[in-house]
Amino acid sequence: MNYILKIFTQDEKGLIYKISDVIFKYHINIIKNDEFVGEGMFFFRAVLEGKFNQNALIHALRTMLGEHSLIELHEKRKKDIIIFVTKESHCLGDLLIRHYSNELEANIKAVISNYDALENLVSKFGIPYHSIETQNLSRIEHEQRILDCLELYSFDYLVLAKYMRILSPAFVKHFTNRIINIHHSFLPAFIGANPYKQAYERGVKIIGATAHFVNNNLDEGPIITQAVLNISHEYTWQDMQQAGRNIEKNVLSKALELVFEDKIFIYNNKTIIF
Amino acid sequence: MNYILKIFTQDEKGLIYKISDVIFKYHINIIKNDEFVGEGMFFFRAVLEGKFNQNALIHALRTMLGEHSLIELHEKRKKDIIIFVTKESHCLGDLLIRHYSNELEANIKAVISNYDALENLVSKFGIPYHSIETQNLSRIEHEQRILDCLELYSFDYLVLAKYMRILSPAFVKHFTNRIINIHHSFLPAFIGANPYKQAYERGVKIIGATAHFVNNNLDEGPIITQAVLNISHEYTWQDMQQAGRNIEKNVLSKALELVFEDKIFIYNNKTIIF
Amino acid sequence: MNYILKIFTQDEKGLIYKISDVIFKYHINIIKNDEFVGEGMFFFRAVLEGKFNQNALIHALRTMLGEHSLIELHEKRKKDIIIFVTKESHCLGDLLIRHYSNELEANIKAVISNYDALENLVSKFGIPYHSIETQNLSRIEHEQRILDCLELYSFDYLVLAKYMRILSPAFVKHFTNRIINIHHSFLPAFIGANPYKQAYERGVKIIGATAHFVNNNLDEGPIITQAVLNISHEYTWQDMQQAGRNIEKNVLSKALELVFEDKIFIYNNKTIIF
Amino acid sequence: MNYILKIFTQDEKGLIYKISDVIFKYHINIIKNDEFVGEGMFFFRAVLEGKFNQNALIHALRTMLGEHSLIELHEKRKKDIIIFVTKESHCLGDLLIRHYSNELEANIKAVISNYDALENLVSKFGIPYHSIETQNLSRIEHEQRILDCLELYSFDYLVLAKYMRILSPAFVKHFTNRIINIHHSFLPAFIGANPYKQAYERGVKIIGATAHFVNNNLDEGPIITQAVLNISHEYTWQDMQQAGRNIEKNVLSKALELVFEDKIFIYNNKTIIF
Repeated sequence: MNYILKIFTQDEKGLIYKISDVIFKYHINIIKNDEFVGEGMFFFRAVLEGKFNQNALIHALRTMLGEHSLIELHEKRKKDIIIFVTKESHCLGDLLIRHYSNELEANIKAVISNYDALENLVSKFGIPYHSIETQNLSRIEHEQRILDCLELYSFDYLVLAKYMRILSPAFVKHFTNRIINIHHSFLPAFIGANPYKQAYERGVKIIGATAHFVNNNLDEGPIITQAVLNISHEYTWQDMQQAGRNIEKNVLSKALELVFEDKIFIYNNKTIIF
Repeated sequence: MNYILKIFTQDEKGLIYKISDVIFKYHINIIKNDEFVGEGMFFFRAVLEGKFNQNALIHALRTMLGEHSLIELHEKRKKDIIIFVTKESHCLGDLLIRHYSNELEANIKAVISNYDALENLVSKFGIPYHSIETQNLSRIEHEQRILDCLELYSFDYLVLAKYMRILSPAFVKHFTNRIINIHHSFLPAFIGANPYKQAYERGVKIIGATAHFVNNNLDEGPIITQAVLNISHEYTWQDMQQAGRNIEKNVLSKALELVFEDKIFIYNNKTIIF
Repeated sequence: MNYILKIFTQDEKGLIYKISDVIFKYHINIIKNDEFVGEGMFFFRAVLEGKFNQNALIHALRTMLGEHSLIELHEKRKKDIIIFVTKESHCLGDLLIRHYSNELEANIKAVISNYDALENLVSKFGIPYHSIETQNLSRIEHEQRILDCLELYSFDYLVLAKYMRILSPAFVKHFTNRIINIHHSFLPAFIGANPYKQAYERGVKIIGATAHFVNNNLDEGPIITQAVLNISHEYTWQDMQQAGRNIEKNVLSKALELVFEDKIFIYNNKTIIF
Repeated sequence: MNYILKIFTQDEKGLIYKISDVIFKYHINIIKNDEFVGEGMFFFRAVLEGKFNQNALIHALRTMLGEHSLIELHEKRKKDIIIFVTKESHCLGDLLIRHYSNELEANIKAVISNYDALENLVSKFGIPYHSIETQNLSRIEHEQRILDCLELYSFDYLVLAKYMRILSPAFVKHFTNRIINIHHSFLPAFIGANPYKQAYERGVKIIGATAHFVNNNLDEGPIITQAVLNISHEYTWQDMQQAGRNIEKNVLSKALELVFEDKIFIYNNKTIIF
């Protein structure tokens, strides 16, 4: 059985020694460990192997590191996710195929959409699809229906795979650091609506996509990963949109891989990724 | 002898036929030609070979295309440039080495700086260096001294190779589409001062550099070329600055190559590049 | 209605003029055209718009260009393809999703495999799947069964989407320049079996994938497109294989896009791509 | 004062704990450390800070790790290098400019060439240039003259910055893992002479450059870093050569940065780079 240990605390001298000392005393093997010191903080992640008393290890680490440290220890396991979509199939389709082929370190528990456009595709794979339309509903009412729907499932993360509605701060607050979005621009350029059109107007020579955690401010959450694509004056904004789809799905899948393997720390609205 | 012909006009049916018809009648060989139609406009560039009456060809083309068309024809030749720098040597150094090795399709006529920091380097290559300091001078006075200095030279382009002062609209107006700048960010992200610090604060995973023509609005001129570099949380903004230097010099050199070969059209604050 | 015109002939002076002259006389509008001269040959591709007598246009062009020129003219239309796979689903899945979302400029007529592993996936999309196993069959017999199966369909191209068997020259000869393969290395490095293992052994820092037309020599056909990925010493060859899948599917899709839009010429075992 | 500690030994349980235990007992601060386990071996690099008895630390580590372990400890300092060139200036020029601007973590002690072509450039920077021509000399005699010349200097590394002669195994043996070469292809593709011509013939769509340590087999030493560039059918091999120069100089500089900061281990003809 493998475990992931994550520690986040104020930096001080000898931390690696002290932590590995504790781990060693429990006869646990460290398969891989990474650490980073930045802005006075210490970030540590290790993959542990062996049989041991998890609570005892956490207790020993906490005694040594103090109450204010973050210490997380859990078994390596597949995560459970709910995917949100609107009408575009490229990101969703990529995740469905990976899921089908057992290449996604997650179980797709359900897909939620504000349209029924993708129900046929999702149903091919035997995954529940909830079409929660917005007609005649206020934002609050619509989000309440989504929250009600989410009650049906246990899940680790919500994945916005081209979900084209903005989630309210009230909604986001329920799932701090648990919502991942793919934004179709190289953030922070072209925040907001139709970034490809903005990119065309500005005449950029490179476009991109950004996967990030969602926080209260639109497109301003911690960035997980980004990728770019060279373009030329020959691209209309529709061409950019078309070409950008490949980048979007690749960036989202890459980001989810990092999330699902518990490789990410969030600090000061930035990510530390091991 | 080779010539570059550039035509820019309203698009209409049969333009390529009509233009090649005129050229063919002058017994001129087209070595290479490119055309592009966008936003209702027609852009055409050809490399011509042969002996012919240039004025006659221009006249024939103008008769056919009308007064409102842009028609440029000139011999392929090295361009003359003046380089502006402040204190950083990486872009300047790259241009000096290329110039020395005969790999720059331009003659560096002089280097102008607001400091004397790079005089020693430039003088090694026998190129005039004008240190025009800003002390006790208003922006207008300082720019006037630069204008006076530029009077000494004939030149095609001004190249801002990390010149860290903002040029006034009055100055820029003298040299429309003749000033090329390297900006140390992936525009339009991080306009203005210290983009690497801004990039660090935002936690981006990719940084970049942008070469563009200078117009009246800071960092908003037509983009020529851009390049990017993957970074991680391990990069301080000083690390980004250091790593960014390679991108900056490469992007500037690439952009200048395109400028010097007359491969660029500017339209609606965007570039069409053949 | 749009048409694609492709011309390939010995280069001579005035060809663009002569060709556009013919086209102009038929009152056909050229929406876009590209030409290239290399190794003494002239390559021309145009997108034409209008109503016209196709045979008359071809005849007029042939009269002007001579018998030895290649002149192709056909309506822009979706291509028909047969996909070959073995057991891996990533390239096939990507094509199925694109096909489902109407983003592939082709109809998938059938999938042929030497295993039944992917039948379940393909059948979700209502596409015929032919499992033609190799057991107890010689290579010739196996290929004959494939040929028999192909008789059932009309198709433009065969797409080897991670088909892990080598096709015999006799088989390939039936479909000259009509078979596209994705090879999981940056050709010409690591020809043959298990290129990721070869890449690991050599300690390269970049891996790649290559889409190419299949000819008689293994992995030596004309290259259409390539892409790469940075790796580090931390990658085992299995990690490379895993990471390489994204590259493989992207490269194959990109190559097919170029093929389906008739943008490719093949000459001297190289591709000219407009 | 900062120190670099490098350890290379057979992997076993608890090594990080044991090593950090020893370091902690000497009251030394670890500013940064990296470790990697691969093929049963353990690689460790740390940047240490503090005042301590270096011999005592090494002794303590050796006692714990055993005789067969590699243990290196030295002060962080600029390296001394000798650059070898033939006639091309781009890599050399880049190093000279970095050296001049204090951005190279090395002192260029001298430049050795088989031609006098670059003497003028090097002399501008006040660096000794030794033109050791090959005329009328056997390979052994020529290399002996180089060895004699090298006797004049103390140095850490020999940098082949487009030195277009093959060094004999006898010569290489004097400087195991101390010679860095830039090869103008994406190794292992296009080993040997004129790789750009080979790349043109094969019709690749991406070209590259590779910096590597030199061993007895031409172009087969451990790879340090690689970079690539997209090309099209429009590139002649001379165009590739021209475009490749930017890649070559960037790759060489990047590799040297890693070498000069003692970030590289060599094992099984591969590099582990922290």
